[in-house]
Amino acid sequence: MKSVKIPSITIYRLSVYARNLAYLDKKNVEVISSEHLADICGINPAQIRKDLAYFGEFGVRGVGYYVKDLLYQLQKILRQDRQWHLGLIGVGNLGAALLQHTHFLKQGYVFVAAFEKDEQKIGKRVGNIIISDIRNLEDVTKKTGMEIGVIATGRSSAQEIVDRLVDAGIKGILNFAPIQLQVPENVFIEYVDFTIKLDVLCYRISSNERERSKLNSIFPKAGSNDKKY
Amino acid sequence: MKSVKIPSITIYRLSVYARNLAYLDKKNVEVISSEHLADICGINPAQIRKDLAYFGEFGVRGVGYYVKDLLYQLQKILRQDRQWHLGLIGVGNLGAALLQHTHFLKQGYVFVAAFEKDEQKIGKRVGNIIISDIRNLEDVTKKTGMEIGVIATGRSSAQEIVDRLVDAGIKGILNFAPIQLQVPENVFIEYVDFTIKLDVLCYRISSNERERSKLNSIFPKAGSNDKKY
Repeated sequence: MKSVKIPSITIYRLSVYARNLAYLDKKNVEVISSEHLADICGINPAQIRKDLAYFGEFGVRGVGYYVKDLLYQLQKILRQDRQWHLGLIGVGNLGAALLQHTHFLKQGYVFVAAFEKDEQKIGKRVGNIIISDIRNLEDVTKKTGMEIGVIATGRSSAQEIVDRLVDAGIKGILNFAPIQLQVPENVFIEYVDFTIKLDVLCYRISSNERERSKLNSIFPKAGSNDKKY
Repeated sequence: MKSVKIPSITIYRLSVYARNLAYLDKKNVEVISSEHLADICGINPAQIRKDLAYFGEFGVRGVGYYVKDLLYQLQKILRQDRQWHLGLIGVGNLGAALLQHTHFLKQGYVFVAAFEKDEQKIGKRVGNIIISDIRNLEDVTKKTGMEIGVIATGRSSAQEIVDRLVDAGIKGILNFAPIQLQVPENVFIEYVDFTIKLDVLCYRISSNERERSKLNSIFPKAGSNDKKY
Protein backbone atom coordinates (compact mmCIF):
# COMPACT_ATOMS: atom_id res chain seq x y z
CA MET A 1 0.00 0.00 0.00
CA LYS A 2 1.42 3.40 -0.95
CA SER A 3 1.60 6.05 1.72
CA VAL A 4 -1.01 8.37 0.19
CA LYS A 5 -3.27 10.44 2.39
CA ILE A 6 -6.71 8.91 1.85
CA PRO A 7 -9.57 11.47 1.99
CA SER A 8 -11.97 11.03 4.92
CA ILE A 9 -14.89 10.79 2.51
CA THR A 10 -13.28 7.73 0.88
CA ILE A 11 -12.90 6.04 4.28
CA TYR A 12 -16.50 6.96 5.01
CA ARG A 13 -17.63 5.28 1.78
CA LEU A 14 -15.44 2.19 2.37
CA SER A 15 -17.31 1.81 5.63
CA VAL A 16 -20.64 2.03 3.77
CA TYR A 17 -19.44 -0.61 1.27
CA ALA A 18 -18.27 -2.90 4.07
CA ARG A 19 -21.57 -2.61 5.92
CA ASN A 20 -23.60 -3.42 2.81
CA LEU A 21 -21.30 -6.29 1.88
CA ALA A 22 -21.71 -7.72 5.40
CA TYR A 23 -25.46 -7.55 4.87
CA LEU A 24 -25.20 -9.29 1.49
CA ASP A 25 -22.91 -11.92 2.96
CA LYS A 26 -25.45 -12.62 5.70
CA LYS A 27 -28.03 -13.12 2.94
CA ASN A 28 -25.61 -15.63 1.30
CA VAL A 29 -25.00 -13.48 -1.77
CA GLU A 30 -21.65 -14.63 -3.19
CA VAL A 31 -21.03 -12.31 -6.13
CA ILE A 32 -22.37 -8.85 -6.86
CA SER A 33 -22.01 -6.65 -9.94
CA SER A 34 -20.44 -3.26 -9.35
CA GLU A 35 -23.70 -1.65 -10.56
CA HIS A 36 -25.78 -3.52 -8.03
CA LEU A 37 -23.37 -2.81 -5.17
CA ALA A 38 -23.31 0.84 -6.19
CA ASP A 39 -27.10 0.93 -6.22
CA ILE A 40 -27.42 -0.53 -2.70
CA CYS A 41 -24.82 1.89 -1.38
CA GLY A 42 -26.37 4.90 -3.12
CA ILE A 43 -23.07 5.67 -4.84
CA ASN A 44 -22.11 5.46 -8.53
CA PRO A 45 -20.01 2.47 -9.73
CA ALA A 46 -17.12 4.67 -10.97
CA GLN A 47 -16.79 6.12 -7.47
CA ILE A 48 -16.56 2.67 -5.92
CA ARG A 49 -13.80 1.69 -8.33
CA LYS A 50 -11.96 4.95 -7.61
CA ASP A 51 -12.22 4.49 -3.84
CA LEU A 52 -11.01 0.90 -3.98
CA ALA A 53 -8.13 1.81 -6.31
CA TYR A 54 -6.36 3.53 -3.41
CA PHE A 55 -5.84 0.11 -1.88
CA GLY A 56 -5.26 -2.23 -4.80
CA GLU A 57 -7.23 -4.14 -7.40
CA PHE A 58 -10.52 -5.69 -6.45
CA GLY A 59 -13.30 -7.22 -8.49
CA VAL A 60 -13.26 -9.25 -11.67
CA ARG A 61 -14.10 -7.70 -15.02
CA GLY A 62 -17.44 -8.96 -16.31
CA VAL A 63 -18.20 -10.64 -12.97
CA GLY A 64 -18.16 -7.99 -10.28
CA TYR A 65 -17.03 -8.45 -6.71
CA TYR A 66 -16.79 -11.59 -4.61
CA VAL A 67 -18.76 -10.48 -1.54
CA LYS A 68 -16.81 -12.38 1.15
CA ASP A 69 -13.45 -11.52 -0.36
CA LEU A 70 -14.09 -7.79 -0.77
CA LEU A 71 -15.63 -7.63 2.70
CA TYR A 72 -12.55 -9.30 4.18
CA GLN A 73 -10.23 -6.87 2.38
CA LEU A 74 -12.24 -3.83 3.47
CA GLN A 75 -12.40 -4.99 7.07
CA LYS A 76 -8.63 -5.37 7.03
CA ILE A 77 -8.16 -1.89 5.58
CA LEU A 78 -10.58 -0.35 8.10
CA ARG A 79 -9.09 -2.40 10.96
CA GLN A 80 -12.50 -3.91 11.61
CA ASP A 81 -10.72 -7.23 11.91
CA ARG A 82 -10.31 -6.64 15.63
CA GLN A 83 -12.38 -5.26 18.55
CA TRP A 84 -12.05 -1.65 19.62
CA HIS A 85 -12.57 -0.64 23.24
CA LEU A 86 -14.80 2.35 23.89
CA GLY A 87 -15.32 4.39 27.06
CA LEU A 88 -18.40 6.54 27.51
CA ILE A 89 -18.24 9.83 29.37
CA GLY A 90 -21.65 11.15 30.48
CA VAL A 91 -24.43 8.62 31.16
CA GLY A 92 -27.53 10.72 30.46
CA ASN A 93 -30.39 9.52 28.25
CA LEU A 94 -28.23 9.55 25.16
CA GLY A 95 -25.22 8.00 26.88
CA ALA A 96 -27.31 5.18 28.34
CA ALA A 97 -28.82 4.50 24.90
CA LEU A 98 -25.34 4.35 23.38
CA LEU A 99 -24.18 1.85 26.02
CA GLN A 100 -27.07 -0.40 25.01
CA HIS A 101 -26.80 0.20 21.26
CA THR A 102 -26.46 -3.35 19.94
CA HIS A 103 -25.29 -2.14 16.55
CA PHE A 104 -21.94 -1.05 18.04
CA LEU A 105 -21.16 -4.54 19.22
CA LYS A 106 -22.09 -6.07 15.87
CA GLN A 107 -19.46 -3.82 14.28
CA GLY A 108 -16.76 -4.78 16.77
CA TYR A 109 -17.06 -1.78 19.10
CA VAL A 110 -17.29 -2.74 22.77
CA PHE A 111 -17.83 -0.40 25.70
CA VAL A 112 -15.40 -1.29 28.47
CA ALA A 113 -16.12 1.66 30.79
CA ALA A 114 -18.56 4.51 31.48
CA PHE A 115 -18.08 7.59 33.63
CA GLU A 116 -20.30 10.02 35.48
CA LYS A 117 -19.88 12.88 37.94
CA ASP A 118 -23.41 12.30 39.31
CA GLU A 119 -23.04 10.40 42.61
CA GLN A 120 -26.51 8.89 42.11
CA LYS A 121 -25.34 7.09 38.98
CA ILE A 122 -21.83 5.99 40.02
CA GLY A 123 -21.77 2.25 40.80
CA LYS A 124 -25.03 1.58 38.91
CA ARG A 125 -25.10 -0.89 36.02
CA VAL A 126 -26.20 0.03 32.48
CA GLY A 127 -26.03 -2.85 30.01
CA ASN A 128 -22.85 -4.73 30.93
CA ILE A 129 -21.07 -1.74 32.39
CA ILE A 130 -20.85 -0.46 35.96
CA ILE A 131 -20.59 3.32 35.94
CA SER A 132 -17.29 4.71 37.26
CA ASP A 133 -16.61 7.98 39.05
CA ILE A 134 -15.31 10.57 36.58
CA ARG A 135 -12.59 11.35 39.12
CA ASN A 136 -11.07 7.94 38.30
CA LEU A 137 -11.04 8.60 34.55
CA GLU A 138 -7.27 8.20 34.10
CA ASP A 139 -6.99 5.05 36.21
CA VAL A 140 -9.96 3.25 34.70
CA THR A 141 -8.92 4.28 31.18
CA LYS A 142 -5.59 2.53 31.64
CA LYS A 143 -6.94 -0.51 33.50
CA THR A 144 -9.68 -1.26 30.98
CA GLY A 145 -7.59 -0.70 27.86
CA MET A 146 -9.98 2.00 26.63
CA GLU A 147 -8.92 3.24 23.19
CA ILE A 148 -11.67 5.64 22.18
CA GLY A 149 -13.52 8.17 24.33
CA VAL A 150 -17.19 8.73 23.50
CA ILE A 151 -18.20 12.16 24.84
CA ALA A 152 -21.88 12.46 25.76
CA THR A 153 -21.52 15.19 28.38
CA GLY A 154 -22.86 18.72 28.11
CA ARG A 155 -21.00 21.46 26.33
CA SER A 156 -19.36 22.97 29.40
CA SER A 157 -17.31 19.98 30.59
CA ALA A 158 -16.46 18.39 27.22
CA GLN A 159 -13.10 20.10 26.59
CA GLU A 160 -11.78 19.39 30.08
CA ILE A 161 -12.72 15.70 29.73
CA VAL A 162 -11.04 15.50 26.33
CA ASP A 163 -7.84 17.04 27.73
CA ARG A 164 -7.80 14.44 30.50
CA LEU A 165 -8.43 11.60 28.01
CA VAL A 166 -5.61 12.80 25.79
CA ASP A 167 -3.25 12.95 28.79
CA ALA A 168 -4.29 9.40 29.62
CA GLY A 169 -3.18 8.30 26.14
CA ILE A 170 -6.49 8.16 24.24
CA LYS A 171 -5.99 8.61 20.48
CA GLY A 172 -9.60 8.85 19.26
CA ILE A 173 -12.67 10.84 20.34
CA LEU A 174 -16.26 10.43 19.17
CA ASN A 175 -17.98 13.62 20.26
CA PHE A 176 -21.74 13.99 20.80
CA ALA A 177 -21.44 17.24 22.82
CA PRO A 178 -22.52 20.33 20.87
CA ILE A 179 -19.10 22.01 20.85
CA GLN A 180 -15.94 22.10 18.73
CA LEU A 181 -13.09 20.51 20.67
CA GLN A 182 -9.32 21.00 20.54
CA VAL A 183 -7.09 17.94 20.29
CA PRO A 184 -3.36 17.54 19.52
CA GLU A 185 -2.30 16.54 16.00
CA ASN A 186 -1.86 12.85 16.81
CA VAL A 187 -5.37 12.52 18.28
CA PHE A 188 -8.38 12.11 16.00
CA ILE A 189 -11.88 13.37 16.57
CA GLU A 190 -15.21 12.78 14.84
CA TYR A 191 -18.40 14.70 15.55
CA VAL A 192 -21.94 13.31 15.70
CA ASP A 193 -24.40 16.13 15.72
CA PHE A 194 -28.11 15.56 15.22
CA THR A 195 -29.23 19.16 15.41
CA ILE A 196 -26.77 20.31 12.78
CA LYS A 197 -28.13 17.61 10.48
CA LEU A 198 -31.64 18.86 11.26
CA ASP A 199 -30.55 22.42 10.48
CA VAL A 200 -29.24 21.34 7.08
CA LEU A 201 -32.45 19.40 6.44
CA CYS A 202 -34.73 22.29 7.36
CA TYR A 203 -32.71 24.71 5.27
CA ARG A 204 -33.06 22.39 2.26
CA ILE A 205 -36.81 21.97 2.78
CA SER A 206 -37.37 25.72 3.18
CA SER A 207 -35.27 26.79 0.24
CA ASN A 208 -36.94 24.18 -1.94
CA GLU A 209 -40.33 25.59 -0.89
CA ARG A 210 -39.13 29.14 -1.62
CA GLU A 211 -38.00 28.07 -5.11
CA ARG A 212 -41.35 26.39 -5.76
CA SER A 213 -43.39 29.35 -4.61
CA LYS A 214 -41.22 31.59 -6.80
CA LEU A 215 -41.90 29.31 -9.79
CA ASN A 216 -45.58 29.22 -8.94
CA SER A 217 -45.78 32.99 -8.94
CA ILE A 218 -44.18 33.08 -12.41
CA PHE A 219 -46.18 30.10 -13.74
CA PRO A 220 -49.34 30.00 -11.65
CA LYS A 221 -51.18 26.71 -11.60
CA ALA A 222 -54.26 26.52 -13.76
CA GLY A 223 -57.13 27.85 -11.74
CA SER A 224 -55.13 29.70 -9.11
CA ASN A 225 -55.59 33.06 -10.83
CA ASP A 226 -59.07 32.41 -12.16
CA LYS A 227 -61.45 35.12 -11.14
CA LYS A 228 -64.67 33.98 -9.64
CA TYR A 229 -67.76 35.86 -10.74
CA MET B 1 -30.66 36.59 -2.18
CA LYS B 2 -29.49 35.12 -5.47
CA SER B 3 -30.72 31.69 -6.44
CA VAL B 4 -27.35 29.93 -6.13
CA LYS B 5 -27.13 26.35 -4.97
CA ILE B 6 -25.45 26.59 -1.57
CA PRO B 7 -23.16 23.63 -0.77
CA SER B 8 -24.31 21.45 2.12
CA ILE B 9 -20.99 21.95 3.87
CA THR B 10 -21.65 25.73 3.95
CA ILE B 11 -25.08 25.18 5.53
CA TYR B 12 -23.43 22.81 7.99
CA ARG B 13 -20.92 25.49 8.96
CA LEU B 14 -23.61 28.21 9.20
CA SER B 15 -25.30 25.98 11.73
CA VAL B 16 -22.02 25.71 13.68
CA TYR B 17 -21.63 29.51 13.60
CA ALA B 18 -25.23 30.01 14.77
CA ARG B 19 -24.81 27.58 17.64
CA ASN B 20 -21.62 29.24 18.85
CA LEU B 21 -23.12 32.72 18.47
CA ALA B 22 -26.12 31.61 20.55
CA TYR B 23 -23.69 30.47 23.23
CA LEU B 24 -21.80 33.79 23.12
CA ASP B 25 -25.08 35.69 23.26
CA LYS B 26 -26.10 33.74 26.35
CA LYS B 27 -22.78 34.78 27.90
CA ASN B 28 -23.65 38.42 27.03
CA VAL B 29 -20.85 38.81 24.50
CA GLU B 30 -21.92 41.65 22.18
CA VAL B 31 -19.15 41.84 19.59
CA ILE B 32 -16.66 39.23 18.44
CA SER B 33 -13.71 39.49 16.08
CA SER B 34 -13.80 37.19 13.08
CA GLU B 35 -10.58 35.56 14.34
CA HIS B 36 -12.11 34.75 17.71
CA LEU B 37 -15.35 33.44 16.20
CA ALA B 38 -13.29 31.33 13.78
CA ASP B 39 -11.25 29.97 16.66
CA ILE B 40 -14.32 28.92 18.68
CA CYS B 41 -15.87 27.29 15.62
CA GLY B 42 -12.65 25.52 14.63
CA ILE B 43 -12.80 27.09 11.16
CA ASN B 44 -10.52 29.70 9.57
CA PRO B 45 -11.73 33.33 9.33
CA ALA B 46 -11.52 33.43 5.52
CA GLN B 47 -13.89 30.45 5.35
CA ILE B 48 -16.44 32.20 7.58
CA ARG B 49 -16.35 35.29 5.35
CA LYS B 50 -16.74 33.11 2.25
CA ASP B 51 -19.69 31.19 3.72
CA LEU B 52 -21.48 34.35 4.80
CA ALA B 53 -20.85 36.04 1.43
CA TYR B 54 -23.45 33.71 -0.16
CA PHE B 55 -26.10 35.55 1.82
CA GLY B 56 -24.95 39.17 1.92
CA GLU B 57 -22.57 41.38 3.85
CA PHE B 58 -22.13 40.81 7.55
CA GLY B 59 -19.60 42.13 10.04
CA VAL B 60 -17.87 45.49 10.32
CA ARG B 61 -14.29 45.95 9.18
CA GLY B 62 -11.96 46.43 12.16
CA VAL B 63 -14.73 45.52 14.60
CA GLY B 64 -15.92 42.03 13.78
CA TYR B 65 -19.45 40.72 14.11
CA TYR B 66 -22.30 41.92 16.28
CA VAL B 67 -23.27 38.67 18.00
CA LYS B 68 -27.04 39.22 18.30
CA ASP B 69 -27.33 40.64 14.81
CA LEU B 70 -25.37 37.88 13.05
CA LEU B 71 -27.20 35.22 15.07
CA TYR B 72 -30.55 36.71 14.03
CA GLN B 73 -29.53 36.74 10.37
CA LEU B 74 -28.25 33.17 10.47
CA GLN B 75 -31.36 31.92 12.21
CA LYS B 76 -33.45 33.56 9.49
CA ILE B 77 -31.35 31.95 6.75
CA LEU B 78 -31.50 28.53 8.42
CA ARG B 79 -35.22 28.92 9.21
CA GLN B 80 -34.45 28.47 12.88
CA ASP B 81 -36.78 31.40 13.50
CA ARG B 82 -39.67 28.97 13.83
CA GLN B 83 -40.37 25.58 15.40
CA TRP B 84 -40.09 22.40 13.37
CA HIS B 85 -42.26 19.39 14.14
CA LEU B 86 -40.55 16.01 14.33
CA GLY B 87 -42.01 12.52 14.40
CA LEU B 88 -40.00 9.58 15.67
CA ILE B 89 -40.36 6.13 14.16
CA GLY B 90 -38.96 3.34 16.34
CA VAL B 91 -38.91 3.83 20.12
CA GLY B 92 -36.00 1.59 21.14
CA ASN B 93 -33.21 2.75 23.46
CA LEU B 94 -31.93 5.25 20.94
CA GLY B 95 -35.40 6.48 19.96
CA ALA B 96 -36.42 7.00 23.59
CA ALA B 97 -33.20 8.93 24.23
CA LEU B 98 -33.90 11.14 21.21
CA LEU B 99 -37.44 11.88 22.46
CA GLN B 100 -35.93 13.11 25.71
CA HIS B 101 -32.95 14.90 24.18
CA THR B 102 -33.36 18.42 25.58
CA HIS B 103 -30.93 19.87 23.08
CA PHE B 104 -33.46 19.39 20.25
CA LEU B 105 -36.01 21.56 21.98
CA LYS B 106 -33.47 24.30 22.68
CA GLN B 107 -32.83 24.45 18.93
CA GLY B 108 -36.52 24.69 18.04
CA TYR B 109 -37.09 21.03 17.18
CA VAL B 110 -40.16 19.54 18.87
CA PHE B 111 -41.32 15.95 18.74
CA VAL B 112 -45.08 15.86 18.10
CA ALA B 113 -45.44 12.11 17.58
CA ALA B 114 -43.70 8.76 18.03
CA PHE B 115 -44.53 5.41 16.44
CA GLU B 116 -43.94 1.77 17.27
CA LYS B 117 -45.06 -1.61 15.98
CA ASP B 118 -44.46 -3.21 19.40
CA GLU B 119 -47.88 -3.57 21.09
CA GLN B 120 -46.19 -3.36 24.51
CA LYS B 121 -45.02 0.17 23.80
CA ILE B 122 -48.06 1.60 21.98
CA GLY B 123 -49.99 3.93 24.30
CA LYS B 124 -47.06 4.38 26.70
CA ARG B 125 -45.66 7.84 27.41
CA VAL B 126 -42.01 8.81 26.77
CA GLY B 127 -41.18 12.41 27.63
CA ASN B 128 -44.24 14.39 26.50
CA ILE B 129 -45.27 11.96 23.80
CA ILE B 130 -47.70 9.06 23.84
CA ILE B 131 -46.49 6.37 21.47
CA SER B 132 -48.77 5.73 18.46
CA ASP B 133 -49.37 2.52 16.55
CA ILE B 134 -47.22 2.48 13.39
CA ARG B 135 -50.36 1.39 11.51
CA ASN B 136 -51.71 4.90 12.07
CA LEU B 137 -48.61 6.60 10.67
CA GLU B 138 -50.38 8.47 7.85
CA ASP B 139 -53.28 9.70 10.02
CA VAL B 140 -51.16 10.85 12.94
CA THR B 141 -48.63 12.47 10.61
CA LYS B 142 -51.35 14.67 9.16
CA LYS B 143 -53.15 15.39 12.44
CA THR B 144 -50.02 16.43 14.33
CA GLY B 145 -48.49 18.53 11.57
CA MET B 146 -45.34 16.39 11.52
CA GLU B 147 -42.81 17.82 9.08
CA ILE B 148 -39.74 15.66 9.56
CA GLY B 149 -39.53 11.90 10.11
CA VAL B 150 -36.77 10.68 12.40
CA ILE B 151 -36.05 7.03 11.59
CA ALA B 152 -34.73 4.98 14.50
CA THR B 153 -35.99 1.59 13.36
CA GLY B 154 -33.85 -1.33 12.30
CA ARG B 155 -32.47 -1.69 8.82
CA SER B 156 -35.18 -3.99 7.50
CA SER B 157 -38.23 -1.75 7.94
CA ALA B 158 -36.64 1.67 7.29
CA GLN B 159 -37.31 1.93 3.53
CA GLU B 160 -40.97 0.91 3.85
CA ILE B 161 -41.49 3.51 6.61
CA VAL B 162 -39.82 6.20 4.51
CA ASP B 163 -42.04 5.37 1.52
CA ARG B 164 -45.12 5.73 3.72
CA LEU B 165 -43.87 9.03 5.17
CA VAL B 166 -43.19 10.40 1.70
CA ASP B 167 -46.70 9.40 0.60
CA ALA B 168 -48.06 11.20 3.67
CA GLY B 169 -46.33 14.40 2.51
CA ILE B 170 -43.17 14.43 4.65
CA LYS B 171 -40.36 16.43 3.01
CA GLY B 172 -37.44 15.68 5.34
CA ILE B 173 -35.95 12.51 6.86
CA LEU B 174 -33.30 12.24 9.56
CA ASN B 175 -32.12 8.64 9.36
CA PHE B 176 -30.43 6.74 12.19
CA ALA B 177 -31.01 3.29 10.64
CA PRO B 178 -27.84 1.75 9.18
CA ILE B 179 -29.04 1.72 5.57
CA GLN B 180 -29.04 3.96 2.49
CA LEU B 181 -32.59 5.03 1.71
CA GLN B 182 -34.30 6.05 -1.52
CA VAL B 183 -36.36 9.24 -1.57
CA PRO B 184 -37.85 11.29 -4.42
CA GLU B 185 -36.04 14.43 -5.61
CA ASN B 186 -38.20 16.85 -3.61
CA VAL B 187 -37.61 15.01 -0.32
CA PHE B 188 -34.40 15.55 1.65
CA ILE B 189 -32.56 13.07 3.80
CA GLU B 190 -29.67 13.34 6.24
CA TYR B 191 -27.86 10.39 7.81
CA VAL B 192 -26.61 10.11 11.38
CA ASP B 193 -24.34 7.15 11.67
CA PHE B 194 -22.20 6.55 14.74
CA THR B 195 -20.50 3.39 13.60
CA ILE B 196 -19.35 4.89 10.31
CA LYS B 197 -17.78 7.74 12.32
CA LEU B 198 -16.11 5.12 14.53
CA ASP B 199 -14.84 3.32 11.44
CA VAL B 200 -13.27 6.54 10.14
CA LEU B 201 -11.77 7.21 13.56
CA CYS B 202 -10.26 3.73 13.91
CA TYR B 203 -8.86 3.86 10.40
CA ARG B 204 -7.17 7.18 11.22
CA ILE B 205 -5.74 5.87 14.50
CA SER B 206 -4.45 2.67 12.88
CA SER B 207 -2.89 4.30 9.86
CA ASN B 208 -1.23 6.88 12.07
CA GLU B 209 0.22 4.05 14.16
CA ARG B 210 1.39 2.25 11.02
CA GLU B 211 3.13 5.43 9.83
CA ARG B 212 4.83 5.84 13.21
CA SER B 213 6.00 2.27 13.41
CA LYS B 214 7.36 2.60 9.87
CA LEU B 215 9.27 5.73 10.92
CA ASN B 216 10.49 3.97 14.06
CA SER B 217 11.88 1.09 12.03
CA ILE B 218 13.81 3.56 9.85
CA PHE B 219 14.89 5.77 12.76
CA PRO B 220 14.82 3.50 15.82
CA LYS B 221 14.63 5.24 19.19
CA ALA B 222 17.86 5.44 21.14
CA GLY B 223 18.16 2.30 23.19
CA SER B 224 15.67 0.20 21.28
CA ASN B 225 18.41 -1.61 19.35
CA ASP B 226 21.01 -1.62 22.11
CA LYS B 227 22.27 -5.08 22.83
CA LYS B 228 22.32 -6.11 26.44
CA TYR B 229 25.38 -7.95 27.60
